[in-house]
Amino acid sequence: MSNMFFSLSSDVKTPVAVPSGMQKRYIENFMTVTQNTGRLMLFAGDQKVEHLNDDFYGKDISLEDNNPEHLFKIASKARIGAFATQLGLISHYGMDYPKIPYIVKLNAKTNLVKTTQADPQSSQWISVEQVMEFKKNSKLNIVGVGYTVYVGSEYESDMLSQAATLIQQAHRYGLLTILWMYPRGKAVAEEKDPHIIAGAAGIGATLGADFVKVNYPKTPNPAEALKEAVQAAGRTKLICAGGASEEVEKFLSTLHDQIHISGTAGNATGRNIHQKPLQEAIRFCNAIAAITFDNKSVEQALQIYHG
Amino acid sequence: MSNMFFSLSSDVKTPVAVPSGMQKRYIENFMTVTQNTGRLMLFAGDQKVEHLNDDFYGKDISLEDNNPEHLFKIASKARIGAFATQLGLISHYGMDYPKIPYIVKLNAKTNLVKTTQADPQSSQWISVEQVMEFKKNSKLNIVGVGYTVYVGSEYESDMLSQAATLIQQAHRYGLLTILWMYPRGKAVAEEKDPHIIAGAAGIGATLGADFVKVNYPKTPNPAEALKEAVQAAGRTKLICAGGASEEVEKFLSTLHDQIHISGTAGNATGRNIHQKPLQEAIRFCNAIAAITFDNKSVEQALQIYHG
Amino acid sequence: MSNMFFSLSSDVKTPVAVPSGMQKRYIENFMTVTQNTGRLMLFAGDQKVEHLNDDFYGKDISLEDNNPEHLFKIASKARIGAFATQLGLISHYGMDYPKIPYIVKLNAKTNLVKTTQADPQSSQWISVEQVMEFKKNSKLNIVGVGYTVYVGSEYESDMLSQAATLIQQAHRYGLLTILWMYPRGKAVAEEKDPHIIAGAAGIGATLGADFVKVNYPKTPNPAEALKEAVQAAGRTKLICAGGASEEVEKFLSTLHDQIHISGTAGNATGRNIHQKPLQEAIRFCNAIAAITFDNKSVEQALQIYHG
Amino acid sequence: MSNMFFSLSSDVKTPVAVPSGMQKRYIENFMTVTQNTGRLMLFAGDQKVEHLNDDFYGKDISLEDNNPEHLFKIASKARIGAFATQLGLISHYGMDYPKIPYIVKLNAKTNLVKTTQADPQSSQWISVEQVMEFKKNSKLNIVGVGYTVYVGSEYESDMLSQAATLIQQAHRYGLLTILWMYPRGKAVAEEKDPHIIAGAAGIGATLGADFVKVNYPKTPNPAEALKEAVQAAGRTKLICAGGASEEVEKFLSTLHDQIHISGTAGNATGRNIHQKPLQEAIRFCNAIAAITFDNKSVEQALQIYHG
Amino acid sequence: MSNMFFSLSSDVKTPVAVPSGMQKRYIENFMTVTQNTGRLMLFAGDQKVEHLNDDFYGKDISLEDNNPEHLFKIASKARIGAFATQLGLISHYGMDYPKIPYIVKLNAKTNLVKTTQADPQSSQWISVEQVMEFKKNSKLNIVGVGYTVYVGSEYESDMLSQAATLIQQAHRYGLLTILWMYPRGKAVAEEKDPHIIAGAAGIGATLGADFVKVNYPKTPNPAEALKEAVQAAGRTKLICAGGASEEVEKFLSTLHDQIHISGTAGNATGRNIHQKPLQEAIRFCNAIAAITFDNKSVEQALQIYHG
Repeated sequence: MSNMFFSLSSDVKTPVAVPSGMQKRYIENFMTVTQNTGRLMLFAGDQKVEHLNDDFYGKDISLEDNNPEHLFKIASKARIGAFATQLGLISHYGMDYPKIPYIVKLNAKTNLVKTTQADPQSSQWISVEQVMEFKKNSKLNIVGVGYTVYVGSEYESDMLSQAATLIQQAHRYGLLTILWMYPRGKAVAEEKDPHIIAGAAGIGATLGADFVKVNYPKTPNPAEALKEAVQAAGRTKLICAGGASEEVEKFLSTLHDQIHISGTAGNATGRNIHQKPLQEAIRFCNAIAAITFDNKSVEQALQIYHG
Repeated sequence: MSNMFFSLSSDVKTPVAVPSGMQKRYIENFMTVTQNTGRLMLFAGDQKVEHLNDDFYGKDISLEDNNPEHLFKIASKARIGAFATQLGLISHYGMDYPKIPYIVKLNAKTNLVKTTQADPQSSQWISVEQVMEFKKNSKLNIVGVGYTVYVGSEYESDMLSQAATLIQQAHRYGLLTILWMYPRGKAVAEEKDPHIIAGAAGIGATLGADFVKVNYPKTPNPAEALKEAVQAAGRTKLICAGGASEEVEKFLSTLHDQIHISGTAGNATGRNIHQKPLQEAIRFCNAIAAITFDNKSVEQALQIYHG
Repeated sequence: MSNMFFSLSSDVKTPVAVPSGMQKRYIENFMTVTQNTGRLMLFAGDQKVEHLNDDFYGKDISLEDNNPEHLFKIASKARIGAFATQLGLISHYGMDYPKIPYIVKLNAKTNLVKTTQADPQSSQWISVEQVMEFKKNSKLNIVGVGYTVYVGSEYESDMLSQAATLIQQAHRYGLLTILWMYPRGKAVAEEKDPHIIAGAAGIGATLGADFVKVNYPKTPNPAEALKEAVQAAGRTKLICAGGASEEVEKFLSTLHDQIHISGTAGNATGRNIHQKPLQEAIRFCNAIAAITFDNKSVEQALQIYHG
Repeated sequence: MSNMFFSLSSDVKTPVAVPSGMQKRYIENFMTVTQNTGRLMLFAGDQKVEHLNDDFYGKDISLEDNNPEHLFKIASKARIGAFATQLGLISHYGMDYPKIPYIVKLNAKTNLVKTTQADPQSSQWISVEQVMEFKKNSKLNIVGVGYTVYVGSEYESDMLSQAATLIQQAHRYGLLTILWMYPRGKAVAEEKDPHIIAGAAGIGATLGADFVKVNYPKTPNPAEALKEAVQAAGRTKLICAGGASEEVEKFLSTLHDQIHISGTAGNATGRNIHQKPLQEAIRFCNAIAAITFDNKSVEQALQIYHG
Repeated sequence: MSNMFFSLSSDVKTPVAVPSGMQKRYIENFMTVTQNTGRLMLFAGDQKVEHLNDDFYGKDISLEDNNPEHLFKIASKARIGAFATQLGLISHYGMDYPKIPYIVKLNAKTNLVKTTQADPQSSQWISVEQVMEFKKNSKLNIVGVGYTVYVGSEYESDMLSQAATLIQQAHRYGLLTILWMYPRGKAVAEEKDPHIIAGAAGIGATLGADFVKVNYPKTPNPAEALKEAVQAAGRTKLICAGGASEEVEKFLSTLHDQIHISGTAGNATGRNIHQKPLQEAIRFCNAIAAITFDNKSVEQALQIYHG
């Protein structure tokens, strides 16, 4: 899948759930978040619930990151496909950052209750109708919605149902849909096993998502192993979560492998970006974007990162 | 029940829940999926949730099967009554496979949480109203809906209620309804006991399903033993699940027994079909169809399979 | 309460919840199911869920009983007040049995999960609105609805709420309401204690039911002991469940005692009827009806049974 | 608070939640149940669920009490403020007792499941909308609704939410609202501790109830101790539950203390009334009413009781 | 953040979820509760549920406090930003206290069930629609709504969903939203750890709250430590709970530190105010207000307190 492929919007396979009157909107949204390349660079800023303040304040984290506006500054100044965060933050900062393409993350949970205590449960915060009303009132560029499914949780039936329903609802309005597909629960022995990741990705496809976000496998040859998931997801595009912070060159190299070996359609990166000071974060985003959107090499991306 | 029986659509017993304005539609749907024979050959493609990627990637599975489109290719090119899968997949592939008669499977769960951990629970993903809206937007040939009930689960009351309600809703629109009736849970000692299968089939009848899909009994003389269930289901037609992959001749022979000894009204086959390469899968479908629709012998069907 | 009492429909005490425009309908329904006597002979055919196939196939059960149509044949040819079963069965057979007065049983559960594993829970399958829509579409003679409450279950609050609500909804349309009131759960030491049965009957009265169906007490002098329940139910008429199959003369004698000693307003009999071959089942129904509707003696009823 | 205080309806503090068009209705209802005194004499007849048949049949209970109509006879012939019972009973007897002011008890549970097995849960049976529809259809004098909250139960959040919502809904129609506030559950060591009763009464006030019904404290000087609860309830008037049957003079003396020492606004009495034969029950009601409404002494009330 | 900042209402950052037609209302509400300073002095009167009567009656508590009207007297006579309490109390006292700016607390639970027994669960009592209807009927100055989220509870998913939804609903009407963000549950080792408090504050921001109320950290240098939370909350203003009663000078000094060291936007004080006699409570409120609204010193505030 090269960045040439989507030079014409007619190349986009709009899900048939999108009504004809909304197909143009869907394609615009798709073209926006993929910058006409078919690949997504998602700046993920939803960790304030998932990890509380652990990702925003502490050792090796820029002090700037403790101000939620740091996320919006990065999202508005760096080259990204879309910025995913909760509606509440968008409501408080959106007036000053009107041009960011937003993905509204519709559910979230904290990491306080561990799987040993209870299986993960994450409920929908707001309805798609509320998102659309928010979009109308705010005039912001809401391009899609996101939702996490914990596959293998004792509560998976709640999350599968909510995910399936909201994707149909979102497509009615031409919104993109992104699922965070995470195997997790007492029944899940190894969350990062490539075969179970492929299963989770395939479930995302049955739910009708446009993109599924999965973790990178923990296995000797992860880039190769991830191919199973990319294929299993079919026309639902697969992107990898950035995960915990790591060294820049290794990150970019991994990303390059994911795209060019595994065949992923991009990435969703959060902590690795926003824990850096603003200028460095922007340059790092741009480096990611260069690999994702422009097929640049790791070396070229590193040059961008180093300014 | 011969394939002559339904040569006239007036032979179809339309459930009285179907409003008069929708009876023609119901009969058309019934004639489509049974190819005017009263027997159903259902290509079941809902395992991406139930078994994650286990059925699509691995030993003895064609590499083609890891691409979800493999299912659609088979469904569009082979002789089948209908293709059952989740709405999300149909949404992403339906534009390229507009002629397939689709059964939308309305619930699904993974197999990660075992019965020893918690009883099975599988909730409805989308409403019948959403299916009808999808049908209108997509212009696809949605002929019915499917739903699994785990009889004997501690959560059976949720599933029984959803099944009963959605069948009434589906019949309002002339849609066919198929129930996967599976005894399962800590309280179920032997899922494949013919008497409990008959009980599950009978419950499907009380729920008003048009077809119930059950497992083939595990007992010395299963074809004979299954008669109890066929009778208990009454006018709700009983079809057998294909189950795990097995040798072709044995599969076809079993199918022939189910129809001609047990008196089933067809089959629902998934893994045995889609784990094969495309051409072989098509020929295997056609062999199944020959037995199901045309009353062919096992030998004749094998000839079709071998091309 | 003699069968003279209701010679005039003005003798029926219509619940005040029935709107004035629906009182005539309510009285017609009441007169139908009691054959103008004030006593109900209910043919209960809801065991396909409650007992799976145990009541329809096996030792001492007519082979005819495994076909659900057996129930409809009996209901259409025997003298009964009404036939209670699930909507799904009515939907598949009603076109051929248009004259039967139907009671739609609105909830059901299997007997697989025992009280030692979990307390009983039985949820409403379809709404009263759906029943009314079904009635309109089918043009069948739906005269009322039924619902089971497991008093003393940890889930009783769900069932009490559903029962109370649906009775109000049913009365709005002039439908009769019948509650199966069964004390059951870990907290219930003896389900057939006459005092707790009286309590369950009284709860049925507070819920506004027209009839409550209870089990016959297991106690030295059950006919005498049941009086407490009959009185506690007040204007809610009490009928006894027929229970497991037993010898015909004993059954009829017990029924006669229930009506003439305990003061019950009839019976709800299932297995004792449908496990017999059709002609015998019809004669047995007619024997029951003779006692219930015509104040016949046990001997006279036996003559009817023996043809 | 003397019975002079409410000689003018303008003295009633109508909750501001009551719309202006419904304030006259609210005041009429208040004047009815307090007989223009500001004090309530509530005849509580909701025990058929709470205690099954224990309160209606047995040792020291009049045989008349096993007929539910006994309650209506008392309520129609004795001097009471209002009669509280379930809608179902009202539906079956209301046509013959059209002048009773009714309080519809909206939730109820049995006492079968003990707190050692599970914490108490009592769900709303019917909606306020259904009550209003019933009122319209029946033309009965429904003056208010009642609801029980088990404070300290693991399920208190469900009951607190239902109570708060239904009070707002009831006030919209000018209906009075009475809460049974009972601390109960594994977390409640002593249900009749005056301090916890005061807490429960105060919660009733935050829910917006017009009256809270609490148990009389079990403590050396209960009349004095109850003052804390009366004060904590503020403008929500506090009435005491009559509790289990006890000797008449002691009952009346306790009631007199509650009103004149504790400052309660009346009582809710059930078993002590209806377990007596009709004429005695009526005289006992009238004795209670004399103390409650007319500020009579215990001796004067006893004279009324003795006829 | 000085009190000069908000001299113009155009300085208020109205959340973009507030429709344009409601922005003026939102700004008025904000200006009211902050007295044009951007800082909130919230008189919290919701403890009648949370602590039952413990906070209103007992050792060292003014006897006046046991009368709920005490709260309204203080709120109407002292200098406060807003008075937070349950709708039921407002319904019973509002007619006499029409000028108080009210915050309706939408959920509440008792403290009877401890975390060792079950994790905290607190459900929404009434809908935002009901609040708006109440506002219309009562003509009272309802300026906002409040809700508690127990972060880290096994039930947090319910509370997070309700909070997110109601904030969107409230903003539609221009109402302010205040979240009580309390880490609590078996999974929370130390509720007053500054890092977890910062996490809870940040979650409040993602939910879109205008204010979050948190506990003051328990740590050697709490004023300094609280900065993390103030920053993490971003544009969602952070206020500290007053907590249990303590010595006046220490309270005011702590408050001054919170505002001038930590950077909080005010306080929410309950018990420290209402457990005092009326006049002292009023003077204490005014002392708090002087620090909060007027940037007065602790000494100046103490002079106000001492009259």
